[in-house]
Amino acid sequence: MSWCSILVDLLIKNGVIITVNSKNEVISDGGVVIDADKIIDIGPMSKIQNYSFNNEIDAKGMVIIPGLINTHTHLAMTLFRGVADDVPGINWLPIIWSIEKNITAEHCYVGALLGCLEMITTGTTTFADQYWHMDRVVKAVNEAGMRANLAQGILELNEPDKGERELTESVAFAKKWNNSSNGRITCKLGPHSIYTCSPTLLQKTREAADEIDVGLHIHVAEAPNEPKMTKEKHGETSIEHLHNLGILKDDVLAAHCVFVNKADMKIMKQTNTSVAHCPTAMMKYGNEVAPIPELLEKEVMVGIGTDGCGSNNNLDMIEEMRTAAFLHKQNKREGTVLPAQQIIRMATILGAKSLGLENEIGSLEVGKKADIIMLDFKKPHLTPFHNCPSHIVYSAFGSDVDTVIIDGNVVMKNGQIITLDESKVLTLAQEAFEELLEIGGYSLSYEKNPKPGFKTNLTVKSFQTFLKLQQKLKGG
Amino acid sequence: MSWCSILVDLLIKNGVIITVNSKNEVISDGGVVIDADKIIDIGPMSKIQNYSFNNEIDAKGMVIIPGLINTHTHLAMTLFRGVADDVPGINWLPIIWSIEKNITAEHCYVGALLGCLEMITTGTTTFADQYWHMDRVVKAVNEAGMRANLAQGILELNEPDKGERELTESVAFAKKWNNSSNGRITCKLGPHSIYTCSPTLLQKTREAADEIDVGLHIHVAEAPNEPKMTKEKHGETSIEHLHNLGILKDDVLAAHCVFVNKADMKIMKQTNTSVAHCPTAMMKYGNEVAPIPELLEKEVMVGIGTDGCGSNNNLDMIEEMRTAAFLHKQNKREGTVLPAQQIIRMATILGAKSLGLENEIGSLEVGKKADIIMLDFKKPHLTPFHNCPSHIVYSAFGSDVDTVIIDGNVVMKNGQIITLDESKVLTLAQEAFEELLEIGGYSLSYEKNPKPGFKTNLTVKSFQTFLKLQQKLKGG
Repeated sequence: MSWCSILVDLLIKNGVIITVNSKNEVISDGGVVIDADKIIDIGPMSKIQNYSFNNEIDAKGMVIIPGLINTHTHLAMTLFRGVADDVPGINWLPIIWSIEKNITAEHCYVGALLGCLEMITTGTTTFADQYWHMDRVVKAVNEAGMRANLAQGILELNEPDKGERELTESVAFAKKWNNSSNGRITCKLGPHSIYTCSPTLLQKTREAADEIDVGLHIHVAEAPNEPKMTKEKHGETSIEHLHNLGILKDDVLAAHCVFVNKADMKIMKQTNTSVAHCPTAMMKYGNEVAPIPELLEKEVMVGIGTDGCGSNNNLDMIEEMRTAAFLHKQNKREGTVLPAQQIIRMATILGAKSLGLENEIGSLEVGKKADIIMLDFKKPHLTPFHNCPSHIVYSAFGSDVDTVIIDGNVVMKNGQIITLDESKVLTLAQEAFEELLEIGGYSLSYEKNPKPGFKTNLTVKSFQTFLKLQQKLKGG
Repeated sequence: MSWCSILVDLLIKNGVIITVNSKNEVISDGGVVIDADKIIDIGPMSKIQNYSFNNEIDAKGMVIIPGLINTHTHLAMTLFRGVADDVPGINWLPIIWSIEKNITAEHCYVGALLGCLEMITTGTTTFADQYWHMDRVVKAVNEAGMRANLAQGILELNEPDKGERELTESVAFAKKWNNSSNGRITCKLGPHSIYTCSPTLLQKTREAADEIDVGLHIHVAEAPNEPKMTKEKHGETSIEHLHNLGILKDDVLAAHCVFVNKADMKIMKQTNTSVAHCPTAMMKYGNEVAPIPELLEKEVMVGIGTDGCGSNNNLDMIEEMRTAAFLHKQNKREGTVLPAQQIIRMATILGAKSLGLENEIGSLEVGKKADIIMLDFKKPHLTPFHNCPSHIVYSAFGSDVDTVIIDGNVVMKNGQIITLDESKVLTLAQEAFEELLEIGGYSLSYEKNPKPGFKTNLTVKSFQTFLKLQQKLKGG
């Protein structure tokens, strides 16, 4: 420290930095200088100025990348991990709902704490969530020190009053929390989907969103029978339907988009609609493959999401990146599809763009928020040390994340989370889960899905029957 | 310890045990009693006899399963991790060979050490390897204390003398090492494939195998152009070709079997040919999907393999299990395909059967060898604690493996490997890799594949051209 040096909060030194800047630069022996919540310098160690610093992290043997951005999840659903596996896709939601109908705000808080814990420890610094009891998710996010884009869900289910009520709640939530916590929390409105919200409600949601200047987070063209149902009901594709209602804009985050055709893609590009691609959940339920390479080719913004733990079953973005790469290489019968560097961009800067946060996060550049993760590469499966982007996508584990910085704060160091009491969160989550089972009349099993009562042999043939069943489950 | 109790080497207590026995029993609060290399008692803690023990492991919060069995890899290729990613499938082998041609026995030893380290730390206790310099792999396996089925590779490449020479070496290797190290090491002969070995050589290999009573480990119907090439050259499918040559028996381990039709499957069932399914490597190169659900339906034995690190890029069997489940659910558009319990069977008991070791390993039962792993479930991504098979397949990381026992010996405890010096192995592997790059005239890069010289734009149109290129690369 020389007498003329600038005092800063934190220096990270001696790491390999994957910047994810517009040139995709990788710095082989680099440093990052952080003051307050921002990156104020970054580059090769030889070019980093002589700063004084309050704290220092030696990143030798580590790889430094932007914090991962999970663009679609339902955080509190961590409590449903493992309850509806290996079942026919159409039965998944009824099974989940048979437990979910009893969920309280407190359960959601605990589930969100578990989710934040899991995300931080596996390198996710920002996530987009659409669920209920979101006030309690805010509380968990603030305790964990994460960055999040939160949307209170809106379900109408052929009950206009219910739809209106949930829209009002979603708007109130967004007004209350958007741009809170030093900007760490932003909001959207959360209309669930076009098969659970009427055209009228969707339009009202759009108007309300414009009024309070937030976007929309909605499931689009996800279920195998959605295309047929939408065509029959509205004479349009899901994307056309939303477009013709005037819903689509650059603030729309459309989860899944499995069933979109070329004309839909053109609309998505025109309207700057973003996509949250969740490959694992779609594979696990035997769904079709979303046309992600085509969407990227058309310059539609595509981020990566894990979806909720009821369907994934974890929140590990490293696994999600790998699965995305493998799935599309296999689907296109071409090993060059979605190379590692591209996948990392999807999980960082494209995710940031999908959330309208590209000026804040998504790459390691001067002026951006200090949302940074460090992976410990001194591991058998990451040796020999070279080709770091590829090792991250094709070989790393979520558990290789050693250090996590969000908004300039070190929230995890040496693999230990600082902001949450890990052991306490695990205990609370176990208790909440067992309580939900008890209320629902299910018993705990180490062998397979809780039983009895899990109707895994339900044969729900159509969405009409499905919606009726759903009503029934919600009612009883 | 009462005065009348039996003295044993090791008691594991208080864990959830996934036995993978014929009833697929899961014991919620169980113990395993080990003496010398064998399991001598297993059951609920309440039914475990009162033993005295030299050592004890408390498995509270852990899940105990049979050691995972990786049925197809090329162990020393850990040194090629990350050198040929995101390239057209047809270019992969030429790229690998451009480095591999310089590999020495010492490199293979170091690569095998790295492989053993990676496998043990991620829960694999047994693997099947087909590669070269296998004497040095034996040395690594013995130092690591693993169980392995090893085959010295046989490549003919239209040079009958070379083929004869390699057959002789493969036979000498198998004779020397089969059933060595308390039976931990068994051997097969390793004819590479039908496109690199002539019918004559394959038949000689079969005769030699019968003479010394070992099986064969061979790549079958893997490459997209193998079916056409085999049809043109031999008028048969790959399976028919091998069957008509009299090669197929219950001691044949056929890696991949991507391109097998119904008639082939019938032959495979009749001959009790086993399959090593390697989903990750096949997806990564954009290959077709092997018909695994169909093969299992026909009761063909299918184990799971990672393939080598040049193509996977890791040796993590937990990831491989998950990928197998997801791939086939997606491919069949049906979430019920290959449920978690079935996947675990494939990675344990079916793997054991594929290697002819079902009386020794693959399940936790009295009389079997003590090849056991324990996963620490006190983790965010494994909470809530229930449905253990599902959590392992759909949510666990390789790094959740806490303790590994092979042949009754504790080779890893509390996440720390005991038999190898981890830090030393990582250093040796890095040095070996950099030496191979230097010999080949490549430079180290943290950004992407080593360059220059990686001809990722090669357009090898046919196997004929491919074989010529391969000869050229081997030559210079």
